Amino acid sequence: MSNIPNVLAQRYASHDITSIWSEEGKIVLEREFWIAVMKAQKELGLDIPEEAISAYESVKGKVDTKSIAERERVTRHDVKARIEEFCDLAGYEHIHKGMTSRDLTENVEQLQVFLSLNLIIEKSVSALIAIGEQAKKHSDIQLTARTHNVAAQATTLGKRFAMYGEELEKALRSTQFILSEYTVRGLKGAVGTQMDTLTLFDGDEDKVAELEAGILKHLGLPYAANAVGQVYPRSYDFEVISSLFQLASPMASFAKTLRVMAGHELASEGFAKGQVGSSAMPHKMNSRTCERINGLQVILGGYLNMASNLSGDQWNEGDVSCSVVRRLMLPDSFFAIDGLLESFLTIMQQFEIYPSVIEKENNYYLPFLLTTTILMEAVKNGGGREEVHKAIKEHAIATVRDLRNGEINENDLLEKLANDKRVGLNADKLAEILKEKGSSSGLAKPQTTKFCLSVEEWKQKFPKAGDYKPGKIL
Amino acid sequence: MSNIPNVLAQRYASHDITSIWSEEGKIVLEREFWIAVMKAQKELGLDIPEEAISAYESVKGKVDTKSIAERERVTRHDVKARIEEFCDLAGYEHIHKGMTSRDLTENVEQLQVFLSLNLIIEKSVSALIAIGEQAKKHSDIQLTARTHNVAAQATTLGKRFAMYGEELEKALRSTQFILSEYTVRGLKGAVGTQMDTLTLFDGDEDKVAELEAGILKHLGLPYAANAVGQVYPRSYDFEVISSLFQLASPMASFAKTLRVMAGHELASEGFAKGQVGSSAMPHKMNSRTCERINGLQVILGGYLNMASNLSGDQWNEGDVSCSVVRRLMLPDSFFAIDGLLESFLTIMQQFEIYPSVIEKENNYYLPFLLTTTILMEAVKNGGGREEVHKAIKEHAIATVRDLRNGEINENDLLEKLANDKRVGLNADKLAEILKEKGSSSGLAKPQTTKFCLSVEEWKQKFPKAGDYKPGKIL
Amino acid sequence: MSNIPNVLAQRYASHDITSIWSEEGKIVLEREFWIAVMKAQKELGLDIPEEAISAYESVKGKVDTKSIAERERVTRHDVKARIEEFCDLAGYEHIHKGMTSRDLTENVEQLQVFLSLNLIIEKSVSALIAIGEQAKKHSDIQLTARTHNVAAQATTLGKRFAMYGEELEKALRSTQFILSEYTVRGLKGAVGTQMDTLTLFDGDEDKVAELEAGILKHLGLPYAANAVGQVYPRSYDFEVISSLFQLASPMASFAKTLRVMAGHELASEGFAKGQVGSSAMPHKMNSRTCERINGLQVILGGYLNMASNLSGDQWNEGDVSCSVVRRLMLPDSFFAIDGLLESFLTIMQQFEIYPSVIEKENNYYLPFLLTTTILMEAVKNGGGREEVHKAIKEHAIATVRDLRNGEINENDLLEKLANDKRVGLNADKLAEILKEKGSSSGLAKPQTTKFCLSVEEWKQKFPKAGDYKPGKIL
Amino acid sequence: MSNIPNVLAQRYASHDITSIWSEEGKIVLEREFWIAVMKAQKELGLDIPEEAISAYESVKGKVDTKSIAERERVTRHDVKARIEEFCDLAGYEHIHKGMTSRDLTENVEQLQVFLSLNLIIEKSVSALIAIGEQAKKHSDIQLTARTHNVAAQATTLGKRFAMYGEELEKALRSTQFILSEYTVRGLKGAVGTQMDTLTLFDGDEDKVAELEAGILKHLGLPYAANAVGQVYPRSYDFEVISSLFQLASPMASFAKTLRVMAGHELASEGFAKGQVGSSAMPHKMNSRTCERINGLQVILGGYLNMASNLSGDQWNEGDVSCSVVRRLMLPDSFFAIDGLLESFLTIMQQFEIYPSVIEKENNYYLPFLLTTTILMEAVKNGGGREEVHKAIKEHAIATVRDLRNGEINENDLLEKLANDKRVGLNADKLAEILKEKGSSSGLAKPQTTKFCLSVEEWKQKFPKAGDYKPGKIL
Repeated sequence: MSNIPNVLAQRYASHDITSIWSEEGKIVLEREFWIAVMKAQKELGLDIPEEAISAYESVKGKVDTKSIAERERVTRHDVKARIEEFCDLAGYEHIHKGMTSRDLTENVEQLQVFLSLNLIIEKSVSALIAIGEQAKKHSDIQLTARTHNVAAQATTLGKRFAMYGEELEKALRSTQFILSEYTVRGLKGAVGTQMDTLTLFDGDEDKVAELEAGILKHLGLPYAANAVGQVYPRSYDFEVISSLFQLASPMASFAKTLRVMAGHELASEGFAKGQVGSSAMPHKMNSRTCERINGLQVILGGYLNMASNLSGDQWNEGDVSCSVVRRLMLPDSFFAIDGLLESFLTIMQQFEIYPSVIEKENNYYLPFLLTTTILMEAVKNGGGREEVHKAIKEHAIATVRDLRNGEINENDLLEKLANDKRVGLNADKLAEILKEKGSSSGLAKPQTTKFCLSVEEWKQKFPKAGDYKPGKIL
Repeated sequence: MSNIPNVLAQRYASHDITSIWSEEGKIVLEREFWIAVMKAQKELGLDIPEEAISAYESVKGKVDTKSIAERERVTRHDVKARIEEFCDLAGYEHIHKGMTSRDLTENVEQLQVFLSLNLIIEKSVSALIAIGEQAKKHSDIQLTARTHNVAAQATTLGKRFAMYGEELEKALRSTQFILSEYTVRGLKGAVGTQMDTLTLFDGDEDKVAELEAGILKHLGLPYAANAVGQVYPRSYDFEVISSLFQLASPMASFAKTLRVMAGHELASEGFAKGQVGSSAMPHKMNSRTCERINGLQVILGGYLNMASNLSGDQWNEGDVSCSVVRRLMLPDSFFAIDGLLESFLTIMQQFEIYPSVIEKENNYYLPFLLTTTILMEAVKNGGGREEVHKAIKEHAIATVRDLRNGEINENDLLEKLANDKRVGLNADKLAEILKEKGSSSGLAKPQTTKFCLSVEEWKQKFPKAGDYKPGKIL
Repeated sequence: MSNIPNVLAQRYASHDITSIWSEEGKIVLEREFWIAVMKAQKELGLDIPEEAISAYESVKGKVDTKSIAERERVTRHDVKARIEEFCDLAGYEHIHKGMTSRDLTENVEQLQVFLSLNLIIEKSVSALIAIGEQAKKHSDIQLTARTHNVAAQATTLGKRFAMYGEELEKALRSTQFILSEYTVRGLKGAVGTQMDTLTLFDGDEDKVAELEAGILKHLGLPYAANAVGQVYPRSYDFEVISSLFQLASPMASFAKTLRVMAGHELASEGFAKGQVGSSAMPHKMNSRTCERINGLQVILGGYLNMASNLSGDQWNEGDVSCSVVRRLMLPDSFFAIDGLLESFLTIMQQFEIYPSVIEKENNYYLPFLLTTTILMEAVKNGGGREEVHKAIKEHAIATVRDLRNGEINENDLLEKLANDKRVGLNADKLAEILKEKGSSSGLAKPQTTKFCLSVEEWKQKFPKAGDYKPGKIL
Repeated sequence: MSNIPNVLAQRYASHDITSIWSEEGKIVLEREFWIAVMKAQKELGLDIPEEAISAYESVKGKVDTKSIAERERVTRHDVKARIEEFCDLAGYEHIHKGMTSRDLTENVEQLQVFLSLNLIIEKSVSALIAIGEQAKKHSDIQLTARTHNVAAQATTLGKRFAMYGEELEKALRSTQFILSEYTVRGLKGAVGTQMDTLTLFDGDEDKVAELEAGILKHLGLPYAANAVGQVYPRSYDFEVISSLFQLASPMASFAKTLRVMAGHELASEGFAKGQVGSSAMPHKMNSRTCERINGLQVILGGYLNMASNLSGDQWNEGDVSCSVVRRLMLPDSFFAIDGLLESFLTIMQQFEIYPSVIEKENNYYLPFLLTTTILMEAVKNGGGREEVHKAIKEHAIATVRDLRNGEINENDLLEKLANDKRVGLNADKLAEILKEKGSSSGLAKPQTTKFCLSVEEWKQKFPKAGDYKPGKIL
């Protein structure tokens, strides 16, 4: 059983996120939580000796995961095992008073989620800023836009970045909202009625409320649930993971698009020094980091699926068929999105374009890309929309076929159109359109500028996000 | 092919929601959209004859779905078929100028989503209000709370309702946020650059912006995307369906809980007049509507899965492998959540409890439900938490086994505890605890009251929601 | 509520499959089932008048779905409604004796699944045969194989078809196995103990067994479950839908690949007469049918998700939170795979390649495609594998960059390699390799031939499958 | 990044399964694979010195995962890193000749899947045998069967086990079929054409075939794919994981049912020595292992979701967005099903029933459970089915309500029926039915016996499976 590490933590996620979820880290968080509860209880009048608190504090860093695992094997109860370990170390029995397991675990796990969500939002803003930089840098690079993977009209590379960036902005706003509303379970006792805390304080409701408020403050969180059961509703986990999936989506679409672009040699994700494309085909420069992003989104989708199966499946005041799932799904979802962000930021650093290939493609398709413009001009000139459309279509398809069959070497669409009375535009007019509009990408540039301005606002709200550099990726 | 109706629309969803998504309804919405565009275009200077607009307006209600289907069979392009049909009816060729299919379909579909989301929010508030009423009504009914489906401590039935209600409130706030941020694609042309509209207006950027603003106003929507491609990002659909799934979750958990409660005959979803429980077992009063709620959530999960597979899978400026999926997933997700809400509201109307069964259960478990209180008292009395816990556990398990084996008929736990020195509480003290705490459910009642106050605020914001009555369900 | 058809049935599925699942069709199947049970019961000695059976038979085709819906609205029980309708039509009360609802519905629904599965297997063999024809036809077309969407080595177009075909063959074998093991619930009564049938026959176990065997024969199915509850295990549905998803996978991978190939203009799915690529961009020849295939697979994935949520969620002898789900999921899964097969078969009919574009691509990449061969030769010539690999890599990457930057117009890799001592092959040797191996695709052809022979065997087992022609698609 | 273990491997899976997937274990498997290839190559005439092979063999057990990770950080290519490490250790460069990464990794991973599948089948047979034992042991325990979680008719506990067992048998047969058809990729080179191996052997096709056959024999696998690309079709992974999910389903349904039964105190999963039910409520005996089974099935569902997203998403000859997913999904799916089986086997060992509670429930519901029998008798006695049904329903519902409202203490249904002429059975006849049928569970027992006979056949095919004892669970 020895060496089976968590693949996501080991290979893809950053230290910042894994340290929130490591076994030792969590145990320390829990112990701090217990100590905070004891202190607050003492302050509210419970008889807890000062030296007991000191004893617990002095041993809180002594984390022996093997010993705890040994205890769990006997008790078959993980929290009990951790209570016993901590008490034996301290030589007292004062922690966990008036508490049930879930008073500890729910709040600590939610704290982990909260801290992770903060980190992911910050890193997503870094990604957004990186997109903004690329959008700005390439705002004048004309590009053949594709729909259905077929050349359609001209756009710019800058706008293509802006498109994904704007999608990310929306996901970020939603995730920020979720964070701002994040609600922990609080100290609610075995079934949510706070009965045991109430007993501890001899029925003093105010003290119960003060104790919870104090703990909330310790957690650094604004809201606690009011009428909750043994556990907080699992739809809260679902919402969080759903937002991670949403954050991943624009980056996943970008990655797929870059894989397609790389197939045309228009651009690539770049190549780190020393990297080997393929052990057998040394010339290959694979979009492996893009593929990884798409893979990590598939993984997030799997965890979303798990989360959706816990949400709405709670019996009575709570059940824990969710337990084994959440142990896996919560850290791994954050590891996956973190690894995805690290991968994306790396691509943003190394992204390369091949301007001469881009230009070659533009020239090849130009007359086609102008068909809608020509259609507009023909209609303005008095042509019936449907008839002109039909004529253009005939010639466009003929040109496509001739090019594909090698019968012509250059796109002769304009020539064909000039000779068709239905269109009603002569060769001169068509040449003029080509000259005037050939380098036009509509409003792609002002749209990009608008997006970049919006990114600036994010930068001001998250002043450190722009400086973040991804770690070295595998 | 004749008679295969949409099962969700036919059996579960209300007329209000299906009318938004019916074939005829959508075609009329589209035609109104085209006419609005024409009018705005004319106002901005395009040469469109008044009589053409009138002609279109006069035939906009003539919807012949068969004729349109016939046309699509030839063109293999649904929008083209609908353009041709409308133009032939009107005798003009003026619609769809400077527009691509997606300028029409994206915006109209998003309008359908927006209208549906509004309706579902309103109906969810109705559900919340109904929960609030049940919570209030049953705020004094003491109930044996269960965790792991095992009797744990006392709570109240009112609080159990409040628990699901509070989860619904959170989902509602999130859904409202999504609605408030809802962003349509706008009039962006074939690849998002607005090139054709720009051509139409001879390069006048302001007119392009004014046209879009006018259309937005027509749709009644606040935001349009800026840098978007052929289609709006499918993560927007994902977010919406994800919020529907989240809304469903508290109701699904309630339904499962009521199925468990009905198994104990503590409560039931009620029985409509004339209803047959089982064709073979006439005494059966099945939780069929609860089961339906759970089934509809499974269905929502399936659509969420589809939505997640479109999100992050967009190549370049857009692809339409999403087309067939969205035709199905968008209406059906709304039909499913609507049917779920109708089912839930019906249960809220017919919900029944069996107080004598509830009381019998309470009495049976009472000494067990008090163990944590006894533990607290023993600890306050100087006992070591772990040692007392161990003693109580031994006796509790013994009592459980004796009861189950028929060796005793009444719960004798208190007697056993009184005789154990480790506990340190005598029979009198234990009797006192039973008397004082036996009817206590901790802070269940004030929590319920707090929840009900919160419901009142929703009621004020949605003044009509409280009056909504669900339709008759199958 | 009027006009909301089932989208999949209306737009994509064939008549053959929809007729199995139409409302009327199912009701007739049910009535035939009841009559078969009555006849068998009479034969085994029950007192059922001949004229009652005749009366039922004479009205079995009178299907009035509105009247049945009306009854269900009162009874809130769908089977009860259909019993009442049929009895009122016949003027007798003899059907459904000793039966519970599930004795009817489970078996009839499983019959629908069984018939549908048969049909889908047959149609999948048609798809396999069509792939075989394409593989054969294009077995000599050399093609630049891509991995990571980057040119890798030479293959043939025929082999690319064979690759997807072989995946389909494996899925077909699995689906055939599932069909051969298909197990219906049989006549098992309310909870599976056959108590009521046993009562009907005064405790005669043999008659109970004979009755079930007779019904099985009527259904044309080999197996009935033995120890089953109220319903058959929902993992059986899961298995079926999982096999449909598996069948779809090779076609979905093919569709994605063709979308990529169309982007390079190597091939296309073809264009039906009268088809419009885009209303705004008439030259566009979109891979819309391929996209539809990918969309339909997403839909199948959604239903698979629903099926997975029913499987393993059965309480006690059975619950019906599955009811609403199965009403939707079972027919729609079959409609989706049927529509997918129709789409795929249409593409197989219209598939086009552009040989001159294919050749151009081959020439552009040829020296790269040979790098592994050169590596092999260099190693055979005494070079160290890792050192040669390093050298080739350096030059290959340099060549790629030079080509992309427009610094060279022709692939000069071989020249560069000839000048590098580490490789150890001179210009003559390299030219010889180019000449000898340039047109080689390894064993692509014999692999294709082997695949085609295997398809022949399927053809013999399914003699009609090769003649099937897909319906006109939308 | 230090201490983040794989949760499933650490807490739930057995050593047998984790050892197949450990990092070290896999590296050794790979090295053995390379050596086997070298030997076969030498035999077929390649010039590989004997001492090189010996050198590789002597270091194959020296696994330094840190050193390999270090190399990967530079090359960003995992296979390359492992080649370099092995070659440096051996001091030769002879491995991986004519191979591409996938020739190694695909086959080794498929070997891991194959070995794991074998192990899981064996352990599932152990589970089936354990079910058989429970079915036999409890074949005479009458039990109140429930549908819709409501008392329906009598069955036996033995049959309830048989029901889940029979579902497991079907899943086992399907999984065995998948194993028997398992097909590895084989040695196919970079894009599947075997070009490099062909070059290695100077175009000798027979040698290419012999090499692959030799390797297959080394793997102990019967089939290799013929026309395959860079990777084997990912639908093969999907099929395997789908079968794991199917295997889990009957155990998951059993676990849910036992959770419901435990809520009624009819039975429990048992309690290991030293186990603590709840840290706060010592009397609680939670169905935690059942809950774990349900959680592990949710996890399997998540991996199934990931698998479904790789299946049908392969571009051209292969892409590796699947890479990161498969690293996680393949081992973890097997860990999850293995942990689930360990949990299930533990429950089978500790399962307890409470006969006096079971009997109490039977008595309470008995008259209701007989309603279908009474209905049958009444019909035989000349009553109209629908009318008698109506009468019974009225009285049954009245009795239910009276019992629930505490108005009566004993079930008086028979008395009420005796007084209703529509039923047509007098008190004596009804008493007789009660006496004769009250202890009947229909054919539950012979069904159970038939199931147990079938289990015997499995036992003979898997002679060791019956002896397997699960490890201690956490």
